[in-house]
Amino acid sequence: EIVAAVEAALADGPLKGRHIVVTSGPTHEPIDPVRYIANRSSGAQGTALARALAALGADVTFVTGPATVPPPDGVKVVKVQTAREMLAAVQTALPADAAVFAAAVADWRMAEDHGQKIKKDGSGAPPVLSFAENPDILATVSQMKTGRPKLVVGFAAETEKVEAHATAKRQRKGCDWIVANDVSPVTGIMGGDENAVVLITDAGADRWPRMRKSLVANRLAELIAEALAQ
Amino acid sequence: EIVAAVEAALADGPLKGRHIVVTSGPTHEPIDPVRYIANRSSGAQGTALARALAALGADVTFVTGPATVPPPDGVKVVKVQTAREMLAAVQTALPADAAVFAAAVADWRMAEDHGQKIKKDGSGAPPVLSFAENPDILATVSQMKTGRPKLVVGFAAETEKVEAHATAKRQRKGCDWIVANDVSPVTGIMGGDENAVVLITDAGADRWPRMRKSLVANRLAELIAEALAQ
Repeated sequence: EIVAAVEAALADGPLKGRHIVVTSGPTHEPIDPVRYIANRSSGAQGTALARALAALGADVTFVTGPATVPPPDGVKVVKVQTAREMLAAVQTALPADAAVFAAAVADWRMAEDHGQKIKKDGSGAPPVLSFAENPDILATVSQMKTGRPKLVVGFAAETEKVEAHATAKRQRKGCDWIVANDVSPVTGIMGGDENAVVLITDAGADRWPRMRKSLVANRLAELIAEALAQ
Repeated sequence: EIVAAVEAALADGPLKGRHIVVTSGPTHEPIDPVRYIANRSSGAQGTALARALAALGADVTFVTGPATVPPPDGVKVVKVQTAREMLAAVQTALPADAAVFAAAVADWRMAEDHGQKIKKDGSGAPPVLSFAENPDILATVSQMKTGRPKLVVGFAAETEKVEAHATAKRQRKGCDWIVANDVSPVTGIMGGDENAVVLITDAGADRWPRMRKSLVANRLAELIAEALAQ
């Protein structure tokens, strides 16, 4: 680990001297002390991307929810559980030259704080759970008035109309790029080694062939280096 | 693994020839293709118990949700995701001399099946999610008219009034024993190596000192062997 950190610090790649924030993994939103809502995400793609950016010399802050794959070596790791914690960690990590939001953040959390376990009341009627919308990390950073990273990249996990949804998402959030993928269970992408992405930029949609997540990461890292060099 | 399986098969302990079903881990109840509700459970206590029962010679069927600790060697492993799958796996595994339900089963699941990802509708209003009560595996098996295991043991994860809640649970479910523990975050039991349990039987409540989960498992396995020998 120390070797990797030293290598990354000494790496003389195109991203040397650049600070990049990468989020990864799911968030867990507590329902009560024993239950939570989670997004399916192994953290594999975000971890691969952080590794690829560090290999190009970047100084990476890696903000990760409870992922199943371990964080890469050679990056600064910040562990969080909830969407609100993730936003706070990102804001603490700024300023940055680029921010890549690969985490699968829960859109909603519980509206009330349940300090004790919610019990069945014996009526057979399920509890009424009230949800509140979580902060939108991608939109928040994309729309910063001052100190916005030069390049803000979002991810879109879609199960239908991937390109249309992702293109609309890029407009709505105000980010520069969207890396969209189809996470329908039939694709086997979620939890798998491969990814088939569509990169949405102001130039339109670029559909990449299906490839290993590590190759997706390398290609994205190189494009990020090119964009920051301009 | 093969060695452990052979050792277990040859084990000449007090549970030789006994079939015991053990459930363990959390269940995951899908909200839509990318989100789910989960119970916090590493599966550590159920795994330790299955291992201890096998070491005493039992033929163990280990029905496990997506746990973070790997299943023990020397048992028959059946992997499930949801409460309904867990019940079906338990019913398939019966008959058994004893059944120990250590899994942290979700009480509720989504009432409707969402085949596509639920999207934010832009209103800022969270979706209304309807829940349905899951089948009660412990009560279902405890109250079997024919073919009920001689010994049915439930677990109770409580955050307050541990003994009172667990004693009431034993009555309500119709099981023989309840292994109750306090999973308040402050105890560090959830996800930790130790457990502090209260064993509720028809003889009353026996409060055990805090000890390693492997020791809790050994002690329970010995008591189960004694109960089945009577």
